[in-house]
Amino acid sequence: MTGPRAQSVVAFGGGHGLHASLRALRRLVDDLTVDELTAVVTVADNGGSSGRLRGQFGVLPPGDLRMALAALCGDDEWGTTWSNVLQHRFAGDGDMNGHVVGNLLIVGLWELLGDHVDALDRVGRLLGATGRVLPMALTPMDITADVRGLVPGDPDALTLVRGQVEVATTDGVIVEIALDPPDPEPCPEAVAAVEEADWVVLGPGSWFTSVIPHLKVPAMRDALVGSDARVVVVLNLEEQAGETPGFGPADHLAVLAEHAPDLQVHTVLADRGSVGDDLAELQQLVTASGATLVVDDVAEHVGSARHDPALLAAAYARILERRWG
Amino acid sequence: MTGPRAQSVVAFGGGHGLHASLRALRRLVDDLTVDELTAVVTVADNGGSSGRLRGQFGVLPPGDLRMALAALCGDDEWGTTWSNVLQHRFAGDGDMNGHVVGNLLIVGLWELLGDHVDALDRVGRLLGATGRVLPMALTPMDITADVRGLVPGDPDALTLVRGQVEVATTDGVIVEIALDPPDPEPCPEAVAAVEEADWVVLGPGSWFTSVIPHLKVPAMRDALVGSDARVVVVLNLEEQAGETPGFGPADHLAVLAEHAPDLQVHTVLADRGSVGDDLAELQQLVTASGATLVVDDVAEHVGSARHDPALLAAAYARILERRWG
Repeated sequence: MTGPRAQSVVAFGGGHGLHASLRALRRLVDDLTVDELTAVVTVADNGGSSGRLRGQFGVLPPGDLRMALAALCGDDEWGTTWSNVLQHRFAGDGDMNGHVVGNLLIVGLWELLGDHVDALDRVGRLLGATGRVLPMALTPMDITADVRGLVPGDPDALTLVRGQVEVATTDGVIVEIALDPPDPEPCPEAVAAVEEADWVVLGPGSWFTSVIPHLKVPAMRDALVGSDARVVVVLNLEEQAGETPGFGPADHLAVLAEHAPDLQVHTVLADRGSVGDDLAELQQLVTASGATLVVDDVAEHVGSARHDPALLAAAYARILERRWG
Repeated sequence: MTGPRAQSVVAFGGGHGLHASLRALRRLVDDLTVDELTAVVTVADNGGSSGRLRGQFGVLPPGDLRMALAALCGDDEWGTTWSNVLQHRFAGDGDMNGHVVGNLLIVGLWELLGDHVDALDRVGRLLGATGRVLPMALTPMDITADVRGLVPGDPDALTLVRGQVEVATTDGVIVEIALDPPDPEPCPEAVAAVEEADWVVLGPGSWFTSVIPHLKVPAMRDALVGSDARVVVVLNLEEQAGETPGFGPADHLAVLAEHAPDLQVHTVLADRGSVGDDLAELQQLVTASGATLVVDDVAEHVGSARHDPALLAAAYARILERRWG
């Protein structure tokens, strides 16, 4: 019989949802529950500073990678200051307006080194980061979506919407997403991290444009399905205008399953206050899928759309303990 | 009787000339001849990436500061890589074209920290820099010049030319330069470094737009004149189109003296191959001013406009030894 040991965790997502998850997971590294933490980040953004840089240089959109690195920055003065610098967005009335310092630094490193992972590892070292940040693929890509309800007079007609921004803000109902190109070059270090992980965390985050895209990268999906890792799905605290209007917790799980039918989820983490009346339906769906539902208080406050890092960390710790406790 | 001791050196300049001087002086830190090296950098650039950033954000032009920091980077893989990243200039066909990564990083730090010196010190720490880089003043400023020969038919008429780029590329003959504002806010750390220095090095570099401007900052000139530091003037290897066409070594010294008549120069360093037939005239001028002329081989090769870092370092070492040997 062996006691608890430190475990490896891979967190999938993008943007603010992944940032929140990483702010929580880093606490598990600090208390030695987790000894290896890897963030795998969507690289399909086509808006803002990232979209402009991607358009000019043909590189991966750096923004979500930069935000994940900032979430993992060392908690000393050095790490937090550099993290704040990387997150600094220029204002002003000129060509720099809207650009973010860390995006420019990452693109500069990519151009200079010609190696995505080496560059991100160097920024991680600069920050004294608690973990590694990797892209979900090495090819810039677009998200496309079949969207229902955009054709006047034909509510069932499907329209193809292209681009992360466009999908995230569509007025219609997203039926299914895909990637273009459909088979982007995988990031070997990210695939290896999944293959060797004890735990994989999906979400929270923009469901169709930050969470599900990982499951549409063939090499990543294969690694996920073939891995011994336990898969934890962290549900969002509320529906998101554009992507998931009217979506309850069960709807989030349902579309995840539709996009990756062969992925076995082991644990679903939901916020008590957010689930509310949907608990029975959610419990039934989770149990039927062979997973365990964990309902916990993880929101900043009741009604908040934001996860509280300390509460989310405590919930993660309890989930990780169950395997080894 | 005391033996040689490590000495403090302040190097004044801007751009490529200061970069060359710092590449040489850092070797004297490595071999313990110098224990404190400070670069004081002109902040009047109004062209290129620096000019664009200055125009958008009202900050000091960061380019020459960045170049000085790069010159002092740690010589390990970490320092040289980050130095290369800071020096990386974006190409492409978009709004980033021509911007330099290090300029953007420095401006981001300035905006975030609100403290010029703290920000530059942090970049120095990132690079593992051999020495400190400071601005000559804390106010962005313009160089203006009285220029002769720009009025057709009136060869003696003076025209006021404004801007570092415009002065550096004028078709006329520069008579005198000034700063606007004429009394920029001094950088206390730079003034203190001069007051405490054993040696001050002026040049090489663009004479009117990188070297002489330091002498036009009142607080800096006062510190220089009042300091016990020995003042070394390093002459350029050749005339510079625009600023100093037709200028021989003696002309460089003459305009320096005109701009700072109360500054006692102790040593003038000239390249043997560049002086050529002008040696007698130069020797006479230097001796008359109470200084010592040192003629040495410091060019990359005969006819080169570039100082060789190793040869320039050897010349500096010999000059510094004379005081204490």
